[in-house]
Amino acid sequence: MALEFWFDFASTYSYPTAMRIEAQAAAAGVALTWKPFLLGPLFQSQGWTDSPFNIYPAKGRYMWRDLERLCSELDIPLRHPTKFPRNGVIASRIASSCEGEPWIPDFIRAVYRANFAEDRDIADAELIADCLEALGQPGRTLIERSQLPEQKDKLRRQTEEAQARGIFGAPTFMVGDEMFWGNDRLEAAIAWGRRKTE
Amino acid sequence: MALEFWFDFASTYSYPTAMRIEAQAAAAGVALTWKPFLLGPLFQSQGWTDSPFNIYPAKGRYMWRDLERLCSELDIPLRHPTKFPRNGVIASRIASSCEGEPWIPDFIRAVYRANFAEDRDIADAELIADCLEALGQPGRTLIERSQLPEQKDKLRRQTEEAQARGIFGAPTFMVGDEMFWGNDRLEAAIAWGRRKTE
Repeated sequence: MALEFWFDFASTYSYPTAMRIEAQAAAAGVALTWKPFLLGPLFQSQGWTDSPFNIYPAKGRYMWRDLERLCSELDIPLRHPTKFPRNGVIASRIASSCEGEPWIPDFIRAVYRANFAEDRDIADAELIADCLEALGQPGRTLIERSQLPEQKDKLRRQTEEAQARGIFGAPTFMVGDEMFWGNDRLEAAIAWGRRKTE
Repeated sequence: MALEFWFDFASTYSYPTAMRIEAQAAAAGVALTWKPFLLGPLFQSQGWTDSPFNIYPAKGRYMWRDLERLCSELDIPLRHPTKFPRNGVIASRIASSCEGEPWIPDFIRAVYRANFAEDRDIADAELIADCLEALGQPGRTLIERSQLPEQKDKLRRQTEEAQARGIFGAPTFMVGDEMFWGNDRLEAAIAWGRRKTE
Protein backbone atom coordinates (compact mmCIF):
# COMPACT_ATOMS: atom_id res chain seq x y z
CA MET A 1 0.00 0.00 0.00
CA ALA A 2 1.29 3.50 -0.80
CA LEU A 3 3.09 5.51 1.84
CA GLU A 4 2.03 9.16 2.15
CA PHE A 5 4.63 11.54 3.57
CA TRP A 6 2.87 14.60 5.03
CA PHE A 7 5.35 17.43 5.58
CA ASP A 8 5.70 21.13 6.32
CA PHE A 9 8.87 22.96 5.25
CA ALA A 10 9.26 24.55 8.70
CA SER A 11 9.19 21.17 10.47
CA THR A 12 12.60 20.29 11.84
CA TYR A 13 12.19 16.54 12.11
CA SER A 14 10.76 16.45 8.57
CA TYR A 15 14.21 17.49 7.33
CA PRO A 16 16.05 14.18 7.98
CA THR A 17 12.95 12.34 6.78
CA ALA A 18 12.85 14.28 3.49
CA MET A 19 16.51 13.48 2.87
CA ARG A 20 16.15 9.72 3.28
CA ILE A 21 12.55 8.66 2.64
CA GLU A 22 12.71 8.23 -1.15
CA ALA A 23 15.65 5.81 -1.07
CA GLN A 24 14.19 3.84 1.84
CA ALA A 25 10.73 3.51 0.32
CA ALA A 26 12.23 2.45 -3.03
CA ALA A 27 14.46 -0.14 -1.35
CA ALA A 28 11.37 -1.59 0.36
CA GLY A 29 9.31 -1.53 -2.85
CA VAL A 30 6.74 0.83 -1.32
CA ALA A 31 5.21 3.59 -3.48
CA LEU A 32 5.70 7.07 -2.03
CA THR A 33 3.44 10.13 -2.28
CA TRP A 34 4.68 13.56 -1.14
CA LYS A 35 1.94 15.47 0.72
CA PRO A 36 2.76 19.11 1.49
CA PHE A 37 0.52 20.84 4.02
CA LEU A 38 0.70 23.76 6.43
CA LEU A 39 1.14 23.14 10.15
CA GLY A 40 0.28 26.78 10.98
CA PRO A 41 -3.52 26.44 10.67
CA LEU A 42 -3.44 23.16 12.65
CA PHE A 43 -1.38 24.76 15.42
CA GLN A 44 -3.66 27.81 15.45
CA SER A 45 -6.70 25.60 15.97
CA GLN A 46 -4.99 24.29 19.17
CA GLY A 47 -4.38 27.87 20.31
CA TRP A 48 -0.69 28.05 19.30
CA THR A 49 0.51 31.09 17.38
CA ASP A 50 4.13 29.97 17.24
CA SER A 51 6.03 26.69 17.00
CA PRO A 52 5.55 24.59 20.15
CA PHE A 53 9.37 24.41 20.23
CA ASN A 54 9.38 28.17 20.83
CA ILE A 55 6.36 28.18 23.14
CA TYR A 56 7.93 25.45 25.34
CA PRO A 57 11.65 26.36 25.54
CA ALA A 58 12.79 23.22 27.41
CA LYS A 59 11.28 21.08 24.65
CA GLY A 60 12.81 23.33 22.01
CA ARG A 61 16.30 23.13 23.48
CA TYR A 62 16.02 19.34 23.61
CA MET A 63 14.71 19.13 20.03
CA TRP A 64 17.71 21.00 18.58
CA ARG A 65 20.15 18.80 20.50
CA ASP A 66 18.27 15.65 19.50
CA LEU A 67 18.16 16.74 15.85
CA GLU A 68 21.90 17.43 15.98
CA ARG A 69 22.57 13.90 17.23
CA LEU A 70 20.20 12.38 14.65
CA CYS A 71 21.62 14.27 11.68
CA SER A 72 25.14 13.46 12.82
CA GLU A 73 24.27 9.76 12.95
CA LEU A 74 22.59 9.89 9.52
CA ASP A 75 25.46 11.98 8.10
CA ILE A 76 23.06 14.79 7.10
CA PRO A 77 24.45 18.34 7.40
CA LEU A 78 22.68 20.59 9.91
CA ARG A 79 23.13 24.26 10.73
CA HIS A 80 20.85 25.65 13.42
CA PRO A 81 18.73 28.21 11.50
CA THR A 82 19.10 31.79 12.78
CA LYS A 83 15.35 32.17 12.29
CA PHE A 84 12.83 29.51 13.33
CA PRO A 85 10.28 28.71 12.12
CA ARG A 86 10.56 30.09 8.59
CA ASN A 87 7.45 30.54 6.45
CA GLY A 88 7.33 27.74 3.89
CA VAL A 89 4.10 28.72 2.15
CA ILE A 90 5.66 29.67 -1.22
CA ALA A 91 7.61 26.41 -1.34
CA SER A 92 4.56 24.42 -0.22
CA ARG A 93 2.45 25.92 -3.00
CA ILE A 94 5.08 24.80 -5.53
CA ALA A 95 5.17 21.29 -4.06
CA SER A 96 1.37 21.22 -4.21
CA SER A 97 0.78 22.83 -7.63
CA CYS A 98 3.57 20.80 -9.31
CA GLU A 99 2.65 17.56 -7.50
CA GLY A 100 3.77 14.48 -9.39
CA GLU A 101 6.45 16.23 -11.48
CA PRO A 102 9.58 14.08 -11.58
CA TRP A 103 11.80 16.89 -10.21
CA ILE A 104 9.57 17.55 -7.15
CA PRO A 105 11.49 15.31 -4.70
CA ASP A 106 14.73 17.12 -5.64
CA PHE A 107 13.00 20.48 -5.17
CA ILE A 108 11.69 19.49 -1.74
CA ARG A 109 15.12 18.33 -0.63
CA ALA A 110 16.71 21.54 -1.95
CA VAL A 111 14.32 23.68 0.11
CA TYR A 112 14.91 21.65 3.27
CA ARG A 113 18.65 21.88 2.71
CA ALA A 114 18.42 25.66 2.26
CA ASN A 115 16.53 26.00 5.56
CA PHE A 116 18.36 23.53 7.77
CA ALA A 117 21.82 23.06 6.26
CA GLU A 118 22.48 26.49 4.70
CA ASP A 119 20.46 28.77 7.01
CA ARG A 120 18.85 30.56 4.05
CA ASP A 121 15.42 32.19 4.09
CA ILE A 122 12.94 29.88 2.36
CA ALA A 123 10.20 32.52 2.79
CA ASP A 124 12.01 34.48 0.04
CA ALA A 125 10.51 33.96 -3.44
CA GLU A 126 13.93 34.63 -5.01
CA LEU A 127 15.44 31.69 -3.17
CA ILE A 128 12.60 29.41 -4.23
CA ALA A 129 12.97 30.59 -7.84
CA ASP A 130 16.71 29.79 -7.62
CA CYS A 131 15.94 26.27 -6.35
CA LEU A 132 13.59 25.77 -9.33
CA GLU A 133 16.02 27.21 -11.91
CA ALA A 134 18.78 24.93 -10.58
CA LEU A 135 16.50 22.02 -11.51
CA GLY A 136 15.93 23.42 -15.02
CA GLN A 137 12.46 24.75 -14.23
CA PRO A 138 11.06 28.24 -15.00
CA GLY A 139 11.14 29.62 -11.44
CA ARG A 140 9.10 32.82 -11.65
CA THR A 141 6.48 31.28 -13.93
CA LEU A 142 5.90 28.34 -11.60
CA ILE A 143 5.71 30.60 -8.54
CA GLU A 144 3.18 32.86 -10.28
CA ARG A 145 1.08 29.87 -11.27
CA SER A 146 1.25 28.43 -7.77
CA GLN A 147 -0.36 31.62 -6.48
CA LEU A 148 -3.46 31.41 -8.63
CA PRO A 149 -6.62 31.02 -6.52
CA GLU A 150 -7.22 27.39 -7.56
CA GLN A 151 -3.65 26.45 -6.60
CA LYS A 152 -3.88 28.21 -3.23
CA ASP A 153 -7.15 26.34 -2.70
CA LYS A 154 -5.48 23.05 -3.49
CA LEU A 155 -2.96 23.47 -0.66
CA ARG A 156 -5.69 24.73 1.67
CA ARG A 157 -7.80 21.65 0.96
CA GLN A 158 -4.84 19.38 1.56
CA THR A 159 -4.26 21.08 4.93
CA GLU A 160 -7.93 20.57 5.77
CA GLU A 161 -7.61 16.93 4.78
CA ALA A 162 -4.61 16.56 7.11
CA GLN A 163 -6.64 17.91 10.01
CA ALA A 164 -9.70 15.82 9.14
CA ARG A 165 -7.55 12.66 9.13
CA GLY A 166 -6.20 13.40 12.61
CA ILE A 167 -2.76 14.71 11.63
CA PHE A 168 -1.37 17.05 14.31
CA GLY A 169 2.34 17.36 13.48
CA ALA A 170 5.03 16.58 10.93
CA PRO A 171 6.47 14.42 9.60
CA THR A 172 3.40 12.19 9.50
CA PHE A 173 3.17 8.99 7.47
CA MET A 174 -0.17 7.56 6.41
CA VAL A 175 -0.58 4.03 5.08
CA GLY A 176 -4.29 3.98 4.37
CA ASP A 177 -5.76 5.10 7.70
CA GLU A 178 -2.79 3.92 9.74
CA MET A 179 -0.86 6.92 11.07
CA PHE A 180 2.78 7.18 12.11
CA TRP A 181 4.18 10.42 13.51
CA GLY A 182 7.81 11.45 13.66
CA ASN A 183 11.04 10.81 11.79
CA ASP A 184 11.71 7.94 14.22
CA ARG A 185 8.61 6.13 12.94
CA LEU A 186 9.71 6.09 9.27
CA GLU A 187 10.98 2.52 9.41
CA ALA A 188 7.77 1.30 11.09
CA ALA A 189 5.62 3.11 8.50
CA ILE A 190 7.57 1.58 5.60
CA ALA A 191 7.34 -1.88 7.17
CA TRP A 192 3.57 -1.38 7.54
CA GLY A 193 3.29 -0.33 3.90
CA ARG A 194 5.29 -3.35 2.81
CA ARG A 195 3.12 -5.76 4.82
CA LYS A 196 0.00 -4.25 3.24
CA THR A 197 1.57 -4.50 -0.24
CA GLU A 198 2.52 -8.17 -0.04
CA MET B 1 28.56 6.35 32.69
CA ALA B 2 25.36 5.59 34.60
CA LEU B 3 22.00 5.84 32.89
CA GLU B 4 19.28 7.64 34.82
CA PHE B 5 15.69 6.67 33.99
CA TRP B 6 13.34 9.51 34.96
CA PHE B 7 9.75 8.30 35.07
CA ASP B 8 6.24 9.13 36.23
CA PHE B 9 3.74 6.34 36.89
CA ALA B 10 1.05 8.06 34.80
CA SER B 11 3.31 8.29 31.73
CA THR B 12 2.14 5.93 29.02
CA TYR B 13 5.40 5.63 27.08
CA SER B 14 7.29 5.03 30.36
CA TYR B 15 5.41 1.73 30.64
CA PRO B 16 7.20 -0.17 27.84
CA THR B 17 10.44 1.45 28.96
CA ALA B 18 9.99 0.29 32.56
CA MET B 19 9.35 -3.26 31.37
CA ARG B 20 12.54 -3.56 29.32
CA ILE B 21 15.15 -1.06 30.54
CA GLU B 22 16.74 -3.18 33.27
CA ALA B 23 17.53 -6.12 30.98
CA GLN B 24 18.79 -3.85 28.18
CA ALA B 25 21.03 -1.77 30.44
CA ALA B 26 22.46 -4.92 32.05
CA ALA B 27 23.13 -6.50 28.64
CA ALA B 28 25.04 -3.35 27.64
CA GLY B 29 26.96 -3.21 30.92
CA VAL B 30 25.51 0.21 31.77
CA ALA B 31 24.58 0.98 35.41
CA LEU B 32 20.96 2.02 35.82
CA THR B 33 19.39 4.44 38.33
CA TRP B 34 15.60 4.68 38.71
CA LYS B 35 14.50 8.30 39.15
CA PRO B 36 10.83 8.78 40.07
CA PHE B 37 9.44 12.29 39.71
CA LEU B 38 6.07 13.95 39.19
CA LEU B 39 5.12 15.32 35.78
CA GLY B 40 2.14 17.22 37.23
CA PRO B 41 4.10 20.20 38.61
CA LEU B 42 6.15 20.42 35.37
CA PHE B 43 2.98 20.41 33.26
CA GLN B 44 1.36 22.99 35.55
CA SER B 45 4.30 25.33 35.09
CA GLN B 46 3.58 25.22 31.32
CA GLY B 47 -0.07 26.02 31.98
CA TRP B 48 -1.41 22.47 31.59
CA THR B 49 -3.81 21.16 34.24
CA ASP B 50 -4.32 17.78 32.53
CA SER B 51 -2.27 15.39 30.42
CA PRO B 52 -1.40 16.93 27.03
CA PHE B 53 -2.85 13.71 25.56
CA ASN B 54 -6.24 14.78 26.95
CA ILE B 55 -5.79 18.49 26.16
CA TYR B 56 -4.93 17.69 22.51
CA PRO B 57 -7.30 14.85 21.53
CA ALA B 58 -5.77 14.19 18.07
CA LYS B 59 -2.39 13.64 19.72
CA GLY B 60 -4.01 11.50 22.42
CA ARG B 61 -5.79 9.24 19.92
CA TYR B 62 -2.55 8.77 18.03
CA MET B 63 -0.58 8.02 21.21
CA TRP B 64 -2.90 5.18 22.26
CA ARG B 65 -2.73 3.60 18.80
CA ASP B 66 1.04 4.03 18.66
CA LEU B 67 1.45 2.52 22.15
CA GLU B 68 -0.74 -0.41 21.09
CA ARG B 69 1.52 -1.09 18.09
CA LEU B 70 4.68 -0.71 20.20
CA CYS B 71 3.52 -3.00 23.01
CA SER B 72 2.34 -5.55 20.49
CA GLU B 73 5.77 -5.53 18.83
CA LEU B 74 7.54 -5.80 22.20
CA ASP B 75 5.09 -8.48 23.37
CA ILE B 76 4.08 -6.38 26.40
CA PRO B 77 0.40 -6.66 27.46
CA LEU B 78 -1.62 -3.45 27.19
CA ARG B 79 -5.16 -2.63 28.21
CA HIS B 80 -6.32 0.93 27.57
CA PRO B 81 -6.93 2.29 31.12
CA THR B 82 -10.53 3.37 31.73
CA LYS B 83 -9.12 6.35 33.64
CA PHE B 84 -6.19 8.42 32.36
CA PRO B 85 -4.06 9.80 33.81
CA ARG B 86 -4.11 8.08 37.19
CA ASN B 87 -2.46 9.71 40.18
CA GLY B 88 0.85 7.96 40.87
CA VAL B 89 1.97 9.99 43.85
CA ILE B 90 1.68 7.18 46.47
CA ALA B 91 3.66 4.80 44.26
CA SER B 92 6.21 7.52 43.43
CA ARG B 93 6.79 8.21 47.13
CA ILE B 94 7.50 4.51 47.66
CA ALA B 95 9.91 4.44 44.71
CA SER B 96 11.60 7.53 46.12
CA SER B 97 11.67 6.64 49.84
CA CYS B 98 12.80 3.04 49.18
CA GLU B 99 15.30 4.04 46.47
CA GLY B 100 18.07 1.50 46.04
CA GLU B 101 16.20 -1.43 47.64
CA PRO B 102 16.73 -4.56 45.56
CA TRP B 103 12.98 -5.14 45.09
CA ILE B 104 12.29 -1.61 43.77
CA PRO B 105 12.52 -2.46 40.04
CA ASP B 106 9.98 -5.26 40.56
CA PHE B 107 7.72 -2.87 42.46
CA ILE B 108 7.91 -0.26 39.70
CA ARG B 109 7.07 -2.84 37.04
CA ALA B 110 4.17 -4.16 39.15
CA VAL B 111 2.65 -0.67 39.42
CA TYR B 112 3.01 -0.01 35.68
CA ARG B 113 1.46 -3.38 34.94
CA ALA B 114 -1.46 -2.62 37.27
CA ASN B 115 -2.12 0.69 35.48
CA PHE B 116 -1.55 -0.25 31.84
CA ALA B 117 -2.08 -4.02 31.61
CA GLU B 118 -4.69 -4.62 34.33
CA ASP B 119 -6.59 -1.31 34.35
CA ARG B 120 -6.37 -1.05 38.16
CA ASP B 121 -6.34 2.18 40.11
CA ILE B 122 -2.76 2.92 41.20
CA ALA B 123 -4.00 5.97 43.13
CA ASP B 124 -5.45 3.51 45.67
CA ALA B 125 -3.17 2.91 48.69
CA GLU B 126 -4.62 -0.60 49.07
CA LEU B 127 -3.42 -1.57 45.62
CA ILE B 128 0.06 -0.20 46.32
CA ALA B 129 0.14 -2.07 49.63
CA ASP B 130 -0.81 -5.26 47.76
CA CYS B 131 2.04 -4.73 45.28
CA LEU B 132 4.47 -4.35 48.18
CA GLU B 133 3.14 -7.37 50.10
CA ALA B 134 3.44 -9.50 46.97
CA LEU B 135 7.15 -8.66 47.04
CA GLY B 136 7.42 -9.66 50.72
CA GLN B 137 7.47 -6.05 51.97
CA PRO B 138 5.40 -4.52 54.80
CA GLY B 139 2.99 -2.52 52.64
CA ARG B 140 1.21 -0.25 55.12
CA THR B 141 4.39 0.48 57.07
CA LEU B 142 6.29 1.52 53.95
CA ILE B 143 3.40 3.68 52.73
CA GLU B 144 3.16 5.41 56.10
CA ARG B 145 6.91 6.04 56.15
CA SER B 146 6.83 7.37 52.57
CA GLN B 147 4.36 10.03 53.72
CA LEU B 148 6.58 11.50 56.42
CA PRO B 149 7.49 15.12 55.64
CA GLU B 150 11.15 14.36 54.87
CA GLN B 151 10.12 11.65 52.38
CA LYS B 152 7.58 13.89 50.66
CA ASP B 153 10.31 16.51 50.47
CA LYS B 154 12.68 14.02 48.86
CA LEU B 155 10.29 13.41 45.94
CA ARG B 156 9.55 17.14 45.67
CA ARG B 157 13.28 17.92 45.45
CA GLN B 158 13.74 15.24 42.79
CA THR B 159 10.90 16.80 40.76
CA GLU B 160 12.57 20.20 41.13
CA GLU B 161 15.85 18.68 39.98
CA ALA B 162 14.11 17.26 36.90
CA GLN B 163 12.80 20.68 35.99
CA ALA B 164 16.13 22.38 36.70
CA ARG B 165 17.90 19.92 34.38
CA GLY B 166 15.51 20.66 31.53
CA ILE B 167 13.32 17.57 31.75
CA PHE B 168 9.85 18.23 30.30
CA GLY B 169 8.34 14.76 29.80
CA ALA B 170 8.76 11.06 30.52
CA PRO B 171 10.43 8.74 30.01
CA THR B 172 13.61 10.81 30.04
CA PHE B 173 17.09 9.30 30.13
CA MET B 174 20.06 11.28 31.42
CA VAL B 175 23.66 10.22 30.85
CA GLY B 176 25.50 12.96 32.69
CA ASP B 177 24.02 16.11 31.12
CA GLU B 178 23.06 14.38 27.87
CA MET B 179 19.27 14.06 27.64
CA PHE B 180 17.17 11.57 25.68
CA TRP B 181 13.38 11.76 25.71
CA GLY B 182 10.95 9.01 24.85
CA ASN B 183 10.78 5.22 24.88
CA ASP B 184 12.09 5.29 21.30
CA ARG B 185 15.35 6.88 22.50
CA LEU B 186 16.18 4.09 24.98
CA GLU B 187 18.61 2.35 22.65
CA ALA B 188 20.39 5.64 21.83
CA ALA B 189 20.68 6.52 25.52
CA ILE B 190 22.14 3.12 26.39
CA ALA B 191 24.61 3.38 23.50
CA TRP B 192 25.63 6.83 24.76
CA GLY B 193 26.12 5.47 28.28
CA ARG B 194 28.22 2.61 26.94
CA ARG B 195 30.44 4.91 24.88
CA LYS B 196 31.02 7.08 27.96
CA THR B 197 31.79 3.96 30.06
CA GLU B 198 34.41 2.50 27.74
